[in-house]
Amino acid sequence: MSSSPKSAEKVSDLDGRPPESTDFANYFCTYAYIYHQKDMLEDHKRTGAYYQAVLSNKRQFQGKVVLDVGTGSGILAIFAAKAGAKKVYAVEATNMAKNARQLVEHNKLSHVVEVIQGTIESIELPEKVDIIISEWMGYFLLRESMLDSVLVARDRFLAPGGALYPSHASIYMAPIRSNLAAQRTSEFQNSMEGWAEFLHEMQHYYQVSLDVLSDGYRSEQKDYYLHTSQWTDTHPQQLLGPAAPIIKYDLNKLTLEELKAPLKSEFVMHMTDGGPVDAFCGFFDVLFKGSDENPTDNEIRLTTAPDPTGATHWGQQTFPLHPPIDCAPGDRLRVSVEVTRRADNQRLLHVKAAVSVEGNSIYAEQSKTPREFRWNIE
Amino acid sequence: MSSSPKSAEKVSDLDGRPPESTDFANYFCTYAYIYHQKDMLEDHKRTGAYYQAVLSNKRQFQGKVVLDVGTGSGILAIFAAKAGAKKVYAVEATNMAKNARQLVEHNKLSHVVEVIQGTIESIELPEKVDIIISEWMGYFLLRESMLDSVLVARDRFLAPGGALYPSHASIYMAPIRSNLAAQRTSEFQNSMEGWAEFLHEMQHYYQVSLDVLSDGYRSEQKDYYLHTSQWTDTHPQQLLGPAAPIIKYDLNKLTLEELKAPLKSEFVMHMTDGGPVDAFCGFFDVLFKGSDENPTDNEIRLTTAPDPTGATHWGQQTFPLHPPIDCAPGDRLRVSVEVTRRADNQRLLHVKAAVSVEGNSIYAEQSKTPREFRWNIE
Repeated sequence: MSSSPKSAEKVSDLDGRPPESTDFANYFCTYAYIYHQKDMLEDHKRTGAYYQAVLSNKRQFQGKVVLDVGTGSGILAIFAAKAGAKKVYAVEATNMAKNARQLVEHNKLSHVVEVIQGTIESIELPEKVDIIISEWMGYFLLRESMLDSVLVARDRFLAPGGALYPSHASIYMAPIRSNLAAQRTSEFQNSMEGWAEFLHEMQHYYQVSLDVLSDGYRSEQKDYYLHTSQWTDTHPQQLLGPAAPIIKYDLNKLTLEELKAPLKSEFVMHMTDGGPVDAFCGFFDVLFKGSDENPTDNEIRLTTAPDPTGATHWGQQTFPLHPPIDCAPGDRLRVSVEVTRRADNQRLLHVKAAVSVEGNSIYAEQSKTPREFRWNIE
Repeated sequence: MSSSPKSAEKVSDLDGRPPESTDFANYFCTYAYIYHQKDMLEDHKRTGAYYQAVLSNKRQFQGKVVLDVGTGSGILAIFAAKAGAKKVYAVEATNMAKNARQLVEHNKLSHVVEVIQGTIESIELPEKVDIIISEWMGYFLLRESMLDSVLVARDRFLAPGGALYPSHASIYMAPIRSNLAAQRTSEFQNSMEGWAEFLHEMQHYYQVSLDVLSDGYRSEQKDYYLHTSQWTDTHPQQLLGPAAPIIKYDLNKLTLEELKAPLKSEFVMHMTDGGPVDAFCGFFDVLFKGSDENPTDNEIRLTTAPDPTGATHWGQQTFPLHPPIDCAPGDRLRVSVEVTRRADNQRLLHVKAAVSVEGNSIYAEQSKTPREFRWNIE
């Protein structure tokens, strides 16, 4: 036998929900590496947006008590302290907390920033906080389900009228041209040809027939090649029409129950160019608006939309369409989408979409019943 | 934030030993994919050796009760049934058990092979068995620590005089020339140059000094680039001298306690060619000799030694030496080696070595105190 832990991609557990220790092993531990913190810190669209959100809104931080959920290296807590916060609680589950503490000391901010190692669900704070800051966004916004912990922090620790940084978040989808779908289809076909050869070898060398596993193998490989979204750095010229918002969250009002429920949305994508549409491109943005009582002076936006200067470390998630959707300029794609957490690992996602073409084209005429698609976000 | 589960390489836990659920998530689950089973099955040096070990020793299997530990796809259980076993218990922890059951039915062997889903530590069998067969070997033989379960199976279920397939296992090391050490050193240096730039950016853009993390980063990157062994397909022409055995196990006699204790060994490698020795190449072999009471008619050997026709799926583990060891033809390298299980994950390994040069060369003369090396096997 020989399996690398690097390829242990998926987690299943008997009751469908991994116990805390498994979650720790599989989720948190990556964040315990400085290497990984560096990857996030040097994404300057990301770090720069948080820097601007805090340092260009010093008035909002002056003399305030701040909580940083998942502080990692401690950078956002340090920004808050530099902006004049009276006290910053910087909470981190992994051993990266030790590095954060060092960094705070080294930057002479120990009198303001207190690093606490633990999960937000398990720690206690001696007071309510005025501001909660956190960089919790995963691929397609929701992967990792870390927003859960921010809402728990809000409900446990945020004073009335307090503000969340960021305060709003939206997910978008856009129709694109992409060679991804064709490429993945061809990789899938190669893989099935390899399987056929393999069956032949096993029969020939060992007189064992493995035909009965073909359906299982096909389904595994289909899931992998055709039903898995992929990180891409999409160029704006690939867009065949403007992106449509799937959902807009006001984080002040969103409840944990709403967040954990399946996300269901219907939206329309307007086709500027004609098809075929090879894929949908999913991305998100977040806004720093403060709260109604304490709005920011400078509203900052962090977007992960396709950008000719290159993607953030989140890139975009590209959802291949097999086969592509034919449509003409001026047509509309009506999409019903459902995003659910994976039963085998609630930090991963499953996306279903039903798509119909509307408009005056021959394609719209032929689109009687919606076509259905599904993808895993790994 | 954004972390891929594919990069969550390491597992740590508070008490140093991950609980069973974590082990299941991180270790067993890879084996639940047909894709991964295919990878192992189509390693024909591996599968062929087991096929020969069983089918060229039919007399030993005729009318016998057999246990297959970690049956995976069920292939070894099927071989045993084809060789004439009366009954085969095929034990598998993952859902691959369902595929194994299908495969057994499809090959019309359900009357002989019974697939049992569970771990060998937790299942019960209605009778003692005459033969235990298992493909338990990990990188460098011991990675994955699956031999533990085979010894548990032996102690729980093997009838007196029963046989283990394989029955013997050895680990070897050889001195080689390799560009791996130089390449990894240069990658490490590049990484540290990147870090220096990163520090500069963080200071310049955000007025935060991250210097205090430099030691931590260097140590992380050193571990990764310089103190981690690597899968290689080593060509025999890279050998600078014959391989020396580190240890030879008689699996009939080895106890679980001996296996779990640190493996300490001293051995000598004879240099046919001169140095510099850039790396040690580690590999293993296993022998199918049966037991003293029931020896095989045909002794089969499965080796993972460097092979001009290409490596098995185990390849070899190459342990880079920084800097290389200078020595002359005719010199000897005396090596004290210690292999321990990692505290943070007992399925991974840590290797320490102390090396001195002996002989008549100037290098031997200069080699006063042994040089020390350490590596993780990931």
